[in-house]
Amino acid sequence: MSAVPFTRDDYAARMARVVADGGAAGVDGLLVTPGPDLVWLTGYQPTAITERLTLLVLTTDREPTLLVPTLERPDAERADGTAATTVVDWLDGADPYTAASTLLRPDGRYAISDGAWAMHLLALQTGLPHTTYDSMTTRLPMLRAVKDANELGRLEAAGAAADATYEQILGVRFSGRKETDVAADLAELLREHGHEQVDFTVVGSGPNGANPHHEAGDRTIEVGDCVVLDFGGLMFGYGSDTSRTVCVGEPSDDIREVHEVVRLAQQAGVDAVRPGVACQEVDRAARAVITDAGYGEQFIHRTGHGIGTTTHEPPYMIEGEEQPLVPGMCFSVEPGIYLAGRFGVRIEDIVTVTDTAGRRLNNTDRALQIVG
Amino acid sequence: MSAVPFTRDDYAARMARVVADGGAAGVDGLLVTPGPDLVWLTGYQPTAITERLTLLVLTTDREPTLLVPTLERPDAERADGTAATTVVDWLDGADPYTAASTLLRPDGRYAISDGAWAMHLLALQTGLPHTTYDSMTTRLPMLRAVKDANELGRLEAAGAAADATYEQILGVRFSGRKETDVAADLAELLREHGHEQVDFTVVGSGPNGANPHHEAGDRTIEVGDCVVLDFGGLMFGYGSDTSRTVCVGEPSDDIREVHEVVRLAQQAGVDAVRPGVACQEVDRAARAVITDAGYGEQFIHRTGHGIGTTTHEPPYMIEGEEQPLVPGMCFSVEPGIYLAGRFGVRIEDIVTVTDTAGRRLNNTDRALQIVG
Repeated sequence: MSAVPFTRDDYAARMARVVADGGAAGVDGLLVTPGPDLVWLTGYQPTAITERLTLLVLTTDREPTLLVPTLERPDAERADGTAATTVVDWLDGADPYTAASTLLRPDGRYAISDGAWAMHLLALQTGLPHTTYDSMTTRLPMLRAVKDANELGRLEAAGAAADATYEQILGVRFSGRKETDVAADLAELLREHGHEQVDFTVVGSGPNGANPHHEAGDRTIEVGDCVVLDFGGLMFGYGSDTSRTVCVGEPSDDIREVHEVVRLAQQAGVDAVRPGVACQEVDRAARAVITDAGYGEQFIHRTGHGIGTTTHEPPYMIEGEEQPLVPGMCFSVEPGIYLAGRFGVRIEDIVTVTDTAGRRLNNTDRALQIVG
Repeated sequence: MSAVPFTRDDYAARMARVVADGGAAGVDGLLVTPGPDLVWLTGYQPTAITERLTLLVLTTDREPTLLVPTLERPDAERADGTAATTVVDWLDGADPYTAASTLLRPDGRYAISDGAWAMHLLALQTGLPHTTYDSMTTRLPMLRAVKDANELGRLEAAGAAADATYEQILGVRFSGRKETDVAADLAELLREHGHEQVDFTVVGSGPNGANPHHEAGDRTIEVGDCVVLDFGGLMFGYGSDTSRTVCVGEPSDDIREVHEVVRLAQQAGVDAVRPGVACQEVDRAARAVITDAGYGEQFIHRTGHGIGTTTHEPPYMIEGEEQPLVPGMCFSVEPGIYLAGRFGVRIEDIVTVTDTAGRRLNNTDRALQIVG
C-alpha cells in the first residue's frame, strides 16, 4: 500500500492559502513551530523537538522563511515542502530570537502554533515588546480542518486498517488474559495493517472501562466483563481512532441497555452531521439521547475531536463550538457512558463531512459483539 | 536490575525546594506543565500531552495544587508524587484557565515550564493581564541540574548500559550493511541492557558523519568509512548519551589525525570540570584544542548539554554560560569535527561533577577502534 506523495507545489499552495487565511483573520502572519502544523505545511519534522528554535514565518510581505539551527539545516532541507521556503539558520551560541525578530514586524500581530514552547514565545515577546500573539487555534482554528482528496484518502486508509484490526481482535481470547496482552495484540494488528505509528490502545475491562482515559493495565479480563477498546495511530502520516465496546460472554441486561443507549447516541451524532451545521449540534444530538435515557451525568466528555496529522485537533464537537461544518472536515463521534466502579461503554467512528451529510470512515458493526 | 523508587516524600521535598528556589529567584511561583519538570516533581506523565490543560501550581501561599482534566484525574492520582499535592479538576466544556486563574495572584510573576504550550500561556496572559511570566530556564535554569544520589545511580546505570552496548557493537559487521541496520542493532542492545526507551541511534558513515544531526539512512557502509555512533535513551527514567567514532578497516591518515584532535579536545573538556568553574570554560577548553589544530570552523556546535529526565537540559557547556559547576551536575562533553562531504568525528561522555573534579559515567576506550 502507498499514498500519493505530497509535492512541493502542494506545500506551497498550503502556505499561500494560510497566509491569506491569516490576513482575513486579522493577523500579519503565522509563526509555526515543529509539530503537526509544520509537518502539514512543509513535510518537515525534526528528529526531536528541543530547546533549539525552529520557526517557519509565513507573512504577506516575504517568501515563506524557515529558520533552523545550523546543524539541523541538512535535515530541514530534505523535506519536500522546504523547497518552497527560504531557509535561514542560526549557529549555536547566537541568539535565535534576534534572527527571528528580523523576520517580524515590530508591531505585528501573529498567530503561533498551539504547541510552540512557552520559552520561545516569551523570548519573542521580550525581544519585540510591541508584537502580539494569538494561539493558532484561537485565531485560525480551522487551519488544517478541511482535508483535500489526498488527505482524505490517507484517513480512509487509516480507518480501513483500524476496521481490519477490530475484525481480527474479535477472534482473540479475552478471558483470562491481561488488558495489556489484548492491547499488545491491537498494536501488532494496527502495524500489520499498515500503521507506521501506534498512539494508543485502550483496553478498559470491567470497572477500568469507567475511566475514559484508562489505557490498559494488568487487570485480568473475566467472563462477564464489558471491555472498551479504543485504538489508533498514524498511517501515511494521518490518524485513525475508533472505539467499540465488547462483552466477554453473555452480557448482563445493564450492559445491553447502556450499550444500546450509546449506540443510538452515536448514530444520532453522525446523523446530525451536514455542511453548515454548528459543531455543537453534533454534541447536542448525541448527548440528548444519553440524557433522555437518564445517563447525562455519566457522559463526562465532549462528543468528538478533529483528526488529521494529529489524533486531536479542531474542530471539536462540544457545546459552545459554533463553527459550521464544512465538506472535507474529519472528526470523531464518540459518545460514552461511564458507570464508576462498574463498567463503561464508548462507540466511536471517524466521520467526514460530504456535500450533503456525514460519511463514516469506520464501518465495522456497532452492535454489541461477544468475545471469548 | 532495578532502581530505588522515588517516594512521596522525595517528591514533596523537591516541590518544597523549588518553591524556595523560586522565591530566591524573584518569582511568586512555578507553573509546571506535562513533561520533564512535572515528571521530576510528581512522577506524573499523562499518557499524551494534548490541548487539555494540566498544570501544577507551586507557590508559597498554598499547598502544591495539580489542576487536571476531570477524565485524567484517576491517572494523575496514581502517580506517587500526586499524593503530596491537592488535585483539582476541570470538566470538558468548562474554561480551564478560569480554574487556573483562581490559583494565581492577579499581579503575580511566575516561572513556567519551557515546553508549556503557547496556547496555555497566551490564555493565562489574557485572563490575568497583570501577571508576568518567565521561562523556567530563564528564571530557574538549574531547577533539575543537580542530581541527588538516587538520580545519579540511575544515570550511572544508564551510562553502564550504553557502554555495554558500545562494547558489543564493535563486534558486529559494519561493511556492506546499511546505517539503519547498525542503528537497529544499537537500539536492540540498549533495550537488552535495560533501557526502557531508545531516543536516538545515530550512525553517520562517511560523508553522513559530517552532519552532526544525521540519524541513520540507507547508505551502505563501506570499507574505509569513518562512522560516528551516537546513541542513548532512558533507563529508570534517566538518560544515556554517548558517542564514539569508529573506522571500518584501516583508517586513513586524515581520519587518524582528526580523531586524535577530537580525543584530546574531549579530554581537555573533561579535565576542565570542577566545582566553581563556569560552564563556558568546559566549552573553551575543548574548543581551544580543536581551534589550535586548525579545525575551529568545523566544530559547529556547543560542547555539551545537561542530562537527567531528558537528554537535553541545562546546564549547557557553551560560550556565554557563566553558571558555575556544582557537585551533582551531569552533562555531556562532546566535541566534534565535521568535514563536509568527507567525514565527521565526535567523542562524547556523560560527566558528573564531584567535589573536586569531573567523573565520567561512560568509560569505554576512546581510542579509534577498527570494526569489520
